[in-house]
Amino acid sequence: MAVNFSFATAGQIIFGNHSLEKVSNLVAGFGKKVVLVTGKNSSRAKELMAKFSPGTDTVIFNVPGEPTTGLIEGGVQLARQHASDVIVGFGGGSVIDSAKAIAAMATNKGELFDYLEVIGQGKPLTEKPLPCIAIPTTAGTGAEVTKNSVIKSPENNVKVSLRSNYMYPDIAVVDPVLTWSMPPALTASTGVDALTHLLETFVSNQANPFIDMLCREGLTRISRSLRKAYKDGSDKEAREDMAMASLLGGMALANVKLGAVHGFAGPMGGMFPIPHGAVCACLMSAVIEENIQALRENKLDSSKFDELAKILTGNEKAMSNDAAIWAAELVAELQIPSLSEFGLTKEDFPVLVEKAKVASSMKGNPVELTDEQLFRILERSL
Amino acid sequence: MAVNFSFATAGQIIFGNHSLEKVSNLVAGFGKKVVLVTGKNSSRAKELMAKFSPGTDTVIFNVPGEPTTGLIEGGVQLARQHASDVIVGFGGGSVIDSAKAIAAMATNKGELFDYLEVIGQGKPLTEKPLPCIAIPTTAGTGAEVTKNSVIKSPENNVKVSLRSNYMYPDIAVVDPVLTWSMPPALTASTGVDALTHLLETFVSNQANPFIDMLCREGLTRISRSLRKAYKDGSDKEAREDMAMASLLGGMALANVKLGAVHGFAGPMGGMFPIPHGAVCACLMSAVIEENIQALRENKLDSSKFDELAKILTGNEKAMSNDAAIWAAELVAELQIPSLSEFGLTKEDFPVLVEKAKVASSMKGNPVELTDEQLFRILERSL
Repeated sequence: MAVNFSFATAGQIIFGNHSLEKVSNLVAGFGKKVVLVTGKNSSRAKELMAKFSPGTDTVIFNVPGEPTTGLIEGGVQLARQHASDVIVGFGGGSVIDSAKAIAAMATNKGELFDYLEVIGQGKPLTEKPLPCIAIPTTAGTGAEVTKNSVIKSPENNVKVSLRSNYMYPDIAVVDPVLTWSMPPALTASTGVDALTHLLETFVSNQANPFIDMLCREGLTRISRSLRKAYKDGSDKEAREDMAMASLLGGMALANVKLGAVHGFAGPMGGMFPIPHGAVCACLMSAVIEENIQALRENKLDSSKFDELAKILTGNEKAMSNDAAIWAAELVAELQIPSLSEFGLTKEDFPVLVEKAKVASSMKGNPVELTDEQLFRILERSL
Repeated sequence: MAVNFSFATAGQIIFGNHSLEKVSNLVAGFGKKVVLVTGKNSSRAKELMAKFSPGTDTVIFNVPGEPTTGLIEGGVQLARQHASDVIVGFGGGSVIDSAKAIAAMATNKGELFDYLEVIGQGKPLTEKPLPCIAIPTTAGTGAEVTKNSVIKSPENNVKVSLRSNYMYPDIAVVDPVLTWSMPPALTASTGVDALTHLLETFVSNQANPFIDMLCREGLTRISRSLRKAYKDGSDKEAREDMAMASLLGGMALANVKLGAVHGFAGPMGGMFPIPHGAVCACLMSAVIEENIQALRENKLDSSKFDELAKILTGNEKAMSNDAAIWAAELVAELQIPSLSEFGLTKEDFPVLVEKAKVASSMKGNPVELTDEQLFRILERSL
């Protein structure tokens, strides 16, 4: 079948241990007025700030958890008042998504709701955002190379995206050293997030050879290194592999729609206080299994899952279902809590299935799943 | 060894058969005033122009051969007088390089020579170029995703680059259909150009796992499809493979320095009327062989050449030197003329070696070659 694809990514990607040291020069290239977006703890951000060129006027903006519409609106006001030249996001996915959204809304007129998908008007951004430098401190979301920000609307109990081709960060600085201090549980949940990005884009109905190439590389690295990074956070090679896999997963998901894992993850994250990576972990194995079965029932090609199984297990003789078994074993080993431990019950299934069916990610699933199949995924994942 | 790299590419890459049909919308997104840079024959450019939105004001600029400094200066004047919103390059590498250089110089003050490497002052561009859309009609140079333009200075008898991180085209449209009509000799020489980009970046002393990934994918496609595309230009799958390989080669060479093949190719192309791809073809096998030998003599790791040999031959048991044999056989099969047929003689060797030693590409060669080794490459390639 003829190959057709479109690909875009961050303006520049800088990868490597201690690449954080390049940030002060990069910031200076954009100007003197900086908003430094970071997590609830500002200590590392202050260290970074101390290295900025003399005369740089930096304000710190804290993102204590997953960003809400209100928090972004606050950040936009700060960026405008500060007359910012550049927004730097220095933290996990929530921080980087916030930095991207603030950079975008600082230059675009009107309200955040005008531009939000699903719950807003979904208008396209018309102005180029402020320059944005994204520096991840976890290895999972790949937000440093994606073009959307996931924002929670407390009023609507849902997470939605601000999305635009303008929103790729100008520079992504991926320094694996920053991830060395992640505790095992965070290594696990963020690592599984990267894994599901690569896994779902690899089998996506929008998959293409260019993205396949990124996925094979990323999946190979996760297969050999996620367990190692979880067990021994000081394993530098494993940390590097995970940082690279996260980057590759972000590059993939920005250009190809995901699938049922992420179709469920949006609504679940909006309804329950479950870390995104944990949601992905709980659903992953059941989604693989149902997808393989649904492809077979519809007499569609499931060979991509055979290749997935070979990559994940490292066993040339593995077949599609071995991918589901591998995923289940991994999640058990990483001691990720089950969905029921987060308060999810069978009574939530009908609402979740309805919301997941219309989620943007669901459109990338390799095969259309029936309600029955979607319910079965939830049952198996509970 | 820890991984360190920087990566950038065109703002957006659109790949696939008939993607040319998307160009009129893309052009309209930038404005109404267009300079359409094309080769000496304008017939395809006129067909493309006819599809632009009503009200689009397009002028055609012809690039009849490899661009000279004078031609670029002329194009810049045209672009400025036309008050252009966007420069479209629609042709082979010379055309796309011209479009990029015109876009860059249209917004930057002063003379072309202020910014040229080697023979000029090599000043960095300070202004963002005009928007540029690059549409290759050959499969080889990858110029649609590189940040330099190769320009010939007739006064200095040398080809040099205008190079800047600003010079990546905003959009690269790679439509394999455009390459279907290439005659076998052009398929061969441009295809070998792509091959040497992938080959030299893969073994470059600046190689990194991200670029390796691109190279493996591109080399695999060339290994299976260059002969096919040469023998049967209507083989759509082979044409698609070559277009993808060319794209991947461009992505690689924009981010990693090449090696001795391209170290020689610059000076040779400046001194003799030899097509760039033919120069690369003639040198390729001897450079591989000398590099392997030099690595061994210096007790350096040559395992990358083992992998190269396996990819090119498709034989899991192939060893490094098989890559050189494969390259020599390929060039013979593609009936590429030898350097002596283009008028090169032994008397030219001393000048060529001196110029090649200081060429930018030579800095990427996997091992530093002695004068003796450089002379031997020329002798073997004659």
